[in-house]
Amino acid sequence: MFDRDDRLLVAVSGGKDSLAVWDLLLDLGYRADGLYIGLGIGDYSEASATYARDFAAERGLHLIEVSLRDEYGYDVPTAARATRRVPCSSCGLSKRHLFDKAALDGGYDVVVTGHNLDDEAAVLFGNALRWDVEYLARQLPVLPARNGFPKKAKPLMRLTERETAAWCIVRGIDYQVEECPMAAGNKHLTYKAALNAIERESPGAKSAFYLNFVEKMAPLLAGTTQAAAGELRPCPECGAPTTGDLCAFCALRQRVAGRPLVSVDVVLGRTRRHGRRHGAPA
Amino acid sequence: MFDRDDRLLVAVSGGKDSLAVWDLLLDLGYRADGLYIGLGIGDYSEASATYARDFAAERGLHLIEVSLRDEYGYDVPTAARATRRVPCSSCGLSKRHLFDKAALDGGYDVVVTGHNLDDEAAVLFGNALRWDVEYLARQLPVLPARNGFPKKAKPLMRLTERETAAWCIVRGIDYQVEECPMAAGNKHLTYKAALNAIERESPGAKSAFYLNFVEKMAPLLAGTTQAAAGELRPCPECGAPTTGDLCAFCALRQRVAGRPLVSVDVVLGRTRRHGRRHGAPA
Repeated sequence: MFDRDDRLLVAVSGGKDSLAVWDLLLDLGYRADGLYIGLGIGDYSEASATYARDFAAERGLHLIEVSLRDEYGYDVPTAARATRRVPCSSCGLSKRHLFDKAALDGGYDVVVTGHNLDDEAAVLFGNALRWDVEYLARQLPVLPARNGFPKKAKPLMRLTERETAAWCIVRGIDYQVEECPMAAGNKHLTYKAALNAIERESPGAKSAFYLNFVEKMAPLLAGTTQAAAGELRPCPECGAPTTGDLCAFCALRQRVAGRPLVSVDVVLGRTRRHGRRHGAPA
Repeated sequence: MFDRDDRLLVAVSGGKDSLAVWDLLLDLGYRADGLYIGLGIGDYSEASATYARDFAAERGLHLIEVSLRDEYGYDVPTAARATRRVPCSSCGLSKRHLFDKAALDGGYDVVVTGHNLDDEAAVLFGNALRWDVEYLARQLPVLPARNGFPKKAKPLMRLTERETAAWCIVRGIDYQVEECPMAAGNKHLTYKAALNAIERESPGAKSAFYLNFVEKMAPLLAGTTQAAAGELRPCPECGAPTTGDLCAFCALRQRVAGRPLVSVDVVLGRTRRHGRRHGAPA
């Protein structure tokens, strides 16, 4: 996945997977800094930042921090409201863009993420349900650097989420247990539940699904991505590679620019359900 | 799928799908005979034969009948016991072989089966879970005749099982509602349940899964099957094309040959649970 001398940038959320992979890489002797992105998801984001900062501080590690609000003028709830799409959509694209940018700006060789087997199998299931060939072709444990994108690696892709949680417990790593409140009911969780039902009937089915894909199907799709990669050009705003006029990140920023920030509760409709406005007394 | 002049052989089980497709094809003016295979699955098979025979007799249609027991000396429960595999395995391979043989012997142009969208999506899900590229490449609505296999078509592959049931009700077709007792708990049903859970969350997901596969993924896999098809040779016993020394059907017959027939209850373990032997009074 990477060389002994590579400088690694670990995308750190404060959850079990990203702290486990950072811990594992350091334990194995790699040079790995962390990157935490402040997504502005209310109390959830505040707590996750604390877990990431405490982990780094206790071990004397370098944690880069980027705040969507402070540096780009929006947050995930506001982007979800402005785009009228599921919050995970603008959250994912913001994170991917900022991971890439931080890696390239900081001269890192590889962006490392903590995606585990459950994550990868669920994403694969979603991509297979639509037979999105372009996405399927890119769903690999290692994506080499290409066309202005940094190299990316997912070292935990063989481990289940129970195993990464167990690693944290064994190693005494304090992590955020709570799930993101904005992810509740998203398709990723539906796909995880469907695969868990299959796994209960056929133990081993989940890892066979992901690992057989990587071994048997991904090589057949390799040609597809290379063709599409040829059409990339630099975004006129930020220089990131894109197939459109603007990259997805700059297009999102334009759409959200100048909007008043909204809270998680507003986006989730909790204020309406509870018959009161956000911030007003109950 | 076929020409106006083609002679069609419809694989008829006595269930809603096969009777609906036979009815539809006749209604559209095609020349279609039926093929019923007696699988020897106790009362279930006896009832299914009655539905198939009554449908044909009421409409003056030609129904070819093949009996596994009378003509090949075994039945599905006995094959399941002998092979120690799930009954659907020897059932499916026996049916495929006898469909092909009957079509070639009778000079039919196409074997038509009643597979509906739910069936196809569930089979596709199973093949994708293992990324069985060879099976995936062959899962098409129409398979052209090749290397000693007849042409095959699945005209109902866009309709859900509710829709084929509705067709039968509207047309006054009496069909076997009961599911095969030997299929209870099989993986196909697990995959159907998983896809139904997805469909409840994302209506349209099931048809997108199957139809996008046919449109976007199957063409990418076309080369894979052609390569494997070159390795077929005639089975020394029966002449059917095979990649092995014996075809799967003849290998199964050799394995089951001479065994005393066992009942459905024995295979399902009901006699043990109920503390009595098959055929003995309760």
